[in-house]
Amino acid sequence: MEVRIDLRSDTVTQQTEVMRRAMYEAKVGDDVYGEDPTMRRLEELACEMTGKEAALFATSGTQGNQLAILSHCSIGQEVIAEELSHIYTLEGAAPAALAGVQVKPIAGFHGALTAEAVERAIHPHDIHKGDIGLICMENTHNQAGGRVIPLSKMKEVYQVGQKYNIPVHVDGARIFNAMVASGTSLKEYAATCDSMQFCLSKGLAAPVGSLLVGSRPFIERARHWRKRMGGGLRQSGFLAAAGIVALTEMVDRLAEDHMNAKRLAEGLQEIPGFQVNPADIETNILLCDITGTGMTSTQLIDQLHDVGIIASAFNSNSIRFVTHHGITAEMIDEALLRIKHLMTITA
Amino acid sequence: MEVRIDLRSDTVTQQTEVMRRAMYEAKVGDDVYGEDPTMRRLEELACEMTGKEAALFATSGTQGNQLAILSHCSIGQEVIAEELSHIYTLEGAAPAALAGVQVKPIAGFHGALTAEAVERAIHPHDIHKGDIGLICMENTHNQAGGRVIPLSKMKEVYQVGQKYNIPVHVDGARIFNAMVASGTSLKEYAATCDSMQFCLSKGLAAPVGSLLVGSRPFIERARHWRKRMGGGLRQSGFLAAAGIVALTEMVDRLAEDHMNAKRLAEGLQEIPGFQVNPADIETNILLCDITGTGMTSTQLIDQLHDVGIIASAFNSNSIRFVTHHGITAEMIDEALLRIKHLMTITA
Amino acid sequence: MEVRIDLRSDTVTQQTEVMRRAMYEAKVGDDVYGEDPTMRRLEELACEMTGKEAALFATSGTQGNQLAILSHCSIGQEVIAEELSHIYTLEGAAPAALAGVQVKPIAGFHGALTAEAVERAIHPHDIHKGDIGLICMENTHNQAGGRVIPLSKMKEVYQVGQKYNIPVHVDGARIFNAMVASGTSLKEYAATCDSMQFCLSKGLAAPVGSLLVGSRPFIERARHWRKRMGGGLRQSGFLAAAGIVALTEMVDRLAEDHMNAKRLAEGLQEIPGFQVNPADIETNILLCDITGTGMTSTQLIDQLHDVGIIASAFNSNSIRFVTHHGITAEMIDEALLRIKHLMTITA
Amino acid sequence: MEVRIDLRSDTVTQQTEVMRRAMYEAKVGDDVYGEDPTMRRLEELACEMTGKEAALFATSGTQGNQLAILSHCSIGQEVIAEELSHIYTLEGAAPAALAGVQVKPIAGFHGALTAEAVERAIHPHDIHKGDIGLICMENTHNQAGGRVIPLSKMKEVYQVGQKYNIPVHVDGARIFNAMVASGTSLKEYAATCDSMQFCLSKGLAAPVGSLLVGSRPFIERARHWRKRMGGGLRQSGFLAAAGIVALTEMVDRLAEDHMNAKRLAEGLQEIPGFQVNPADIETNILLCDITGTGMTSTQLIDQLHDVGIIASAFNSNSIRFVTHHGITAEMIDEALLRIKHLMTITA
Repeated sequence: MEVRIDLRSDTVTQQTEVMRRAMYEAKVGDDVYGEDPTMRRLEELACEMTGKEAALFATSGTQGNQLAILSHCSIGQEVIAEELSHIYTLEGAAPAALAGVQVKPIAGFHGALTAEAVERAIHPHDIHKGDIGLICMENTHNQAGGRVIPLSKMKEVYQVGQKYNIPVHVDGARIFNAMVASGTSLKEYAATCDSMQFCLSKGLAAPVGSLLVGSRPFIERARHWRKRMGGGLRQSGFLAAAGIVALTEMVDRLAEDHMNAKRLAEGLQEIPGFQVNPADIETNILLCDITGTGMTSTQLIDQLHDVGIIASAFNSNSIRFVTHHGITAEMIDEALLRIKHLMTITA
Repeated sequence: MEVRIDLRSDTVTQQTEVMRRAMYEAKVGDDVYGEDPTMRRLEELACEMTGKEAALFATSGTQGNQLAILSHCSIGQEVIAEELSHIYTLEGAAPAALAGVQVKPIAGFHGALTAEAVERAIHPHDIHKGDIGLICMENTHNQAGGRVIPLSKMKEVYQVGQKYNIPVHVDGARIFNAMVASGTSLKEYAATCDSMQFCLSKGLAAPVGSLLVGSRPFIERARHWRKRMGGGLRQSGFLAAAGIVALTEMVDRLAEDHMNAKRLAEGLQEIPGFQVNPADIETNILLCDITGTGMTSTQLIDQLHDVGIIASAFNSNSIRFVTHHGITAEMIDEALLRIKHLMTITA
Repeated sequence: MEVRIDLRSDTVTQQTEVMRRAMYEAKVGDDVYGEDPTMRRLEELACEMTGKEAALFATSGTQGNQLAILSHCSIGQEVIAEELSHIYTLEGAAPAALAGVQVKPIAGFHGALTAEAVERAIHPHDIHKGDIGLICMENTHNQAGGRVIPLSKMKEVYQVGQKYNIPVHVDGARIFNAMVASGTSLKEYAATCDSMQFCLSKGLAAPVGSLLVGSRPFIERARHWRKRMGGGLRQSGFLAAAGIVALTEMVDRLAEDHMNAKRLAEGLQEIPGFQVNPADIETNILLCDITGTGMTSTQLIDQLHDVGIIASAFNSNSIRFVTHHGITAEMIDEALLRIKHLMTITA
Repeated sequence: MEVRIDLRSDTVTQQTEVMRRAMYEAKVGDDVYGEDPTMRRLEELACEMTGKEAALFATSGTQGNQLAILSHCSIGQEVIAEELSHIYTLEGAAPAALAGVQVKPIAGFHGALTAEAVERAIHPHDIHKGDIGLICMENTHNQAGGRVIPLSKMKEVYQVGQKYNIPVHVDGARIFNAMVASGTSLKEYAATCDSMQFCLSKGLAAPVGSLLVGSRPFIERARHWRKRMGGGLRQSGFLAAAGIVALTEMVDRLAEDHMNAKRLAEGLQEIPGFQVNPADIETNILLCDITGTGMTSTQLIDQLHDVGIIASAFNSNSIRFVTHHGITAEMIDEALLRIKHLMTITA
């Protein structure tokens, strides 16, 4: 087996030469004292791009999301989130562990919460319940298969939040994929929430980091919480330098990842045992039902691994492929060839 | 309007003369020092009745449940519970607020978790998730309409817990209703879990209190947590005295509450606009769909209030009636008369 | 050995016949619904006596204190308390465990914080520290030997709180002892803080319970937290009935306990090996250095136990005696006789 | 004013060219999947240097310390720490906020806890208290003025921990300063504790990061907690590359910082109003009493700032100077000249 084709996640992306050079040359200072010029520039850039008042670097999307929860909520409150959202399912129960809040998961459609469902989940103040302290959305929605949440849906949910005076947070770990796929600008998305977190790593290929944006007092609280969690960095400008490249040079190229994901879907639907509809592939994530192969996810993933294709299990009968900066159209075609060959052998 | 017929909850039950006298005559001591003889007797009685090693008085079912969570789990874990369970929906987000654990709600059938659903909700150790630290059941299940969870179902779930080495807790706030309705003994139920909480108030008519039972080390941890929460009482024997009467004299009479609830259901199904199936009424709780009345729950409850019937809203188109020690068959008939009359007028 | 003389704590006090009868005859209702008339009366009485806006029953002093911390503070703040205060040393680390706040203990003089020390402990907002969210005082101060905190000292500390906009809470578990000893009224004390907790048990001889008083919004938050901790009781009027007797009939008699404590001190100072200054005994608690006996606290307590005197260890070379409703002047004299006799034998 | 002489903290250190180049050339991978080769190498190096079983990168000393507390303790426990330790005073009350544990601060001598004081602070299991879950030391001790805790003192405290089966953690943010000053090896220090955290930034001049070392199961728990706090990084190898340079090339040069700090002390003691004993300066931190200047810390710091010297306030009458990689002996001499001149003018 020659080339390894790693389709596990866009988090495996290697950094570009431009990024490495930007890091090498970065002007830095002690960011706990607010003196790192490159970090300041990155945070300003995040404000400019989102139209929000203030921004804060976090070492990961999880940290950005948890800082938002800690800074919006008080202990004993409830947080509405989609039932397959990253915040609820993949952050180690941190909303409870760190902030002492209970997630109230509700089902979305293709990852999108409806205003009706959110409103139904909001109860009046009741001594038997925690007050609802936050509503969370995720765009694109990872476990819904990289689905784009339409701006109109986000607006509707935000209106519910405003009606009940409940803040709205957006986990925009892959908001740039949504942007590129939908043509909606980051500012438009950011106008539908009180706070947003987006990642510099993943599709944008920075090594580390996310940005949390919101009002100035909110970000001040988040900065305090970040220090408490040990996220106050010293010469953070190295990471910021890569982040600036990510935001200024790497966004447009996401279109390529989306085309590659669709190309993969189109190929896979031709292979017996793989069930996927290319029309469902809106961004760079592809969930594929593999029941028809007669294998469990784990079994199939092991076999794919042996032919140099790295995928991940979504559940026992679905697997996940993610395209990214390290994946070309040629690699997709090569992967399809290998999978076809594999299925012929095992059939 | 003469007699007020209060069907809101069995928590409104007044104490019997026997209980009042038992309290009056109680021998008491300082229970923080373990020197209240009546409390000791009550806790021993709970052990005898359940077959568990140790018991602890709690000031409410909520406290008993939360002590169980705190004593079984560690911060950052997840707790499986039915999606309409009291622990998840009616304890003020306390699992998160106090113990720092995240509830993972799953749907039951008539309140009963299936072994399959529970097993599906258990994930292997994963750095992105909290480990499952506890499985909770509720019997009878309040928001499923007082449904009895069959012993066989409880056993199956307990086996899943044992298979994965996860403790199982039963919120038996109304376990005596389940016992009386099913003929299953308390010992049999208690054998399907590591810990159980049951209430002395509600149908058993004690003024205050619940008992938590389990292994000796578990109860020692719970006692420590109870002190921290300010549940360490001094001369608690007064409450224990009422509790002993509750356990020894008030259990059998629950059958009467169950007959009254069924009697109410049978009457209501004859009244246009009220939809309830008497076959669904297994114990003392009756949920009734009132969509057909053309009123919302709140509107109907207000009208019922005006004719001296106190019910509570279950949701916007269902109301809840609960029978208890203060409700006789005659009062049920009287209530039905008033409701019929009311609906004739408003029709 | 005939009569057991239990000087461990005033928490061991037995209830009076008047209290038992009041409990027996109590009118009760479901207090979670706010319908227990006796509890309502007790909470009103607490307001009248303290001049505070609202009151809430708690099942113990610990619960009252922790509800105050939870209702005043937010997670990550710091709380100033005296270094031997009950809140810091004897509530199971609950400020951290429940509210997520860090106690900043500072040394007092005879239990009293000075305004200077409190002000020095207040730092400006700093990303490296938690903001100060609460200042706590304790009056009388248990581990300072039942010392009365003078009203003037409380006023000074309260002024510091007001200057920095930090709420002040008083743990008044034994505030009635302070009142009786100093002649200061409860209203005067309560005017030096934002919230106060005082116990109905201990010297006032109720079996269970404390009252937390403060502003209406504060008490509403505390009520919510009380429910979460399982402190929402049903027919709580039984406990309230005893509490009303405690507040209306038992306060003045504390003077007797104070005289008995002083009588004990005067006797003990005559016994070789016991070191105590009667002038230090302001209320019902007596700390006695027993280094001179050549025994450790544990050894001496065991020997006292054998002659029917129950005391507790304060530390390795001091023991604590507490007088209360169950202790008469005759019992003090008898205790002194036995101790003298014991020391003669062991000498 | 020409050159700015920044003596605030060693955290302001700029990175060396060697470090920048190592970062530029780093081989990286997704560290959440354990696939970053440079990070793996750094963590192995930490194990080799300390003799501990496993190591984990943290984004700061605060994060390393808090991960240790979360991984050693359970909620409701108490943690013994020196009263001026970083963990207690400068981590935002995180032990309470994140782990729900209460710090029990005790006074040290020159920052060193004595075995006697630690043992006195350990109480037997008591329902009124949290169990002691951890003992923390800090070496060098920042707020004691960079004092080295002697190995013998650390051993004694560790023996107390072992006697009571309580784990011991060392905040070794500046352990390399202790090493260089005392000649004790890192392995010897690490043998006196169950876990240690040391910083790559500060004197060692890496931009970001600390390492936590301990047993394998401990580090696994810490890794889980790090993910929850958002400290799971993707291509962390860039930071690791700098860290490897820090550990392999930057340790010995700390001796220079220590000489510069002593040089500064020797100069300052000659200037009227500044009180400092050069014999107290063991490493790179210098606390100086400035009462004699007639200025407050804030006033003096402002004046120093105007002459291009940056220091920080320790308290109202002491200021702190810290030497580091960016400070040469010439800069110390220049600083002394400016200070002398300043004091002449203001006198």
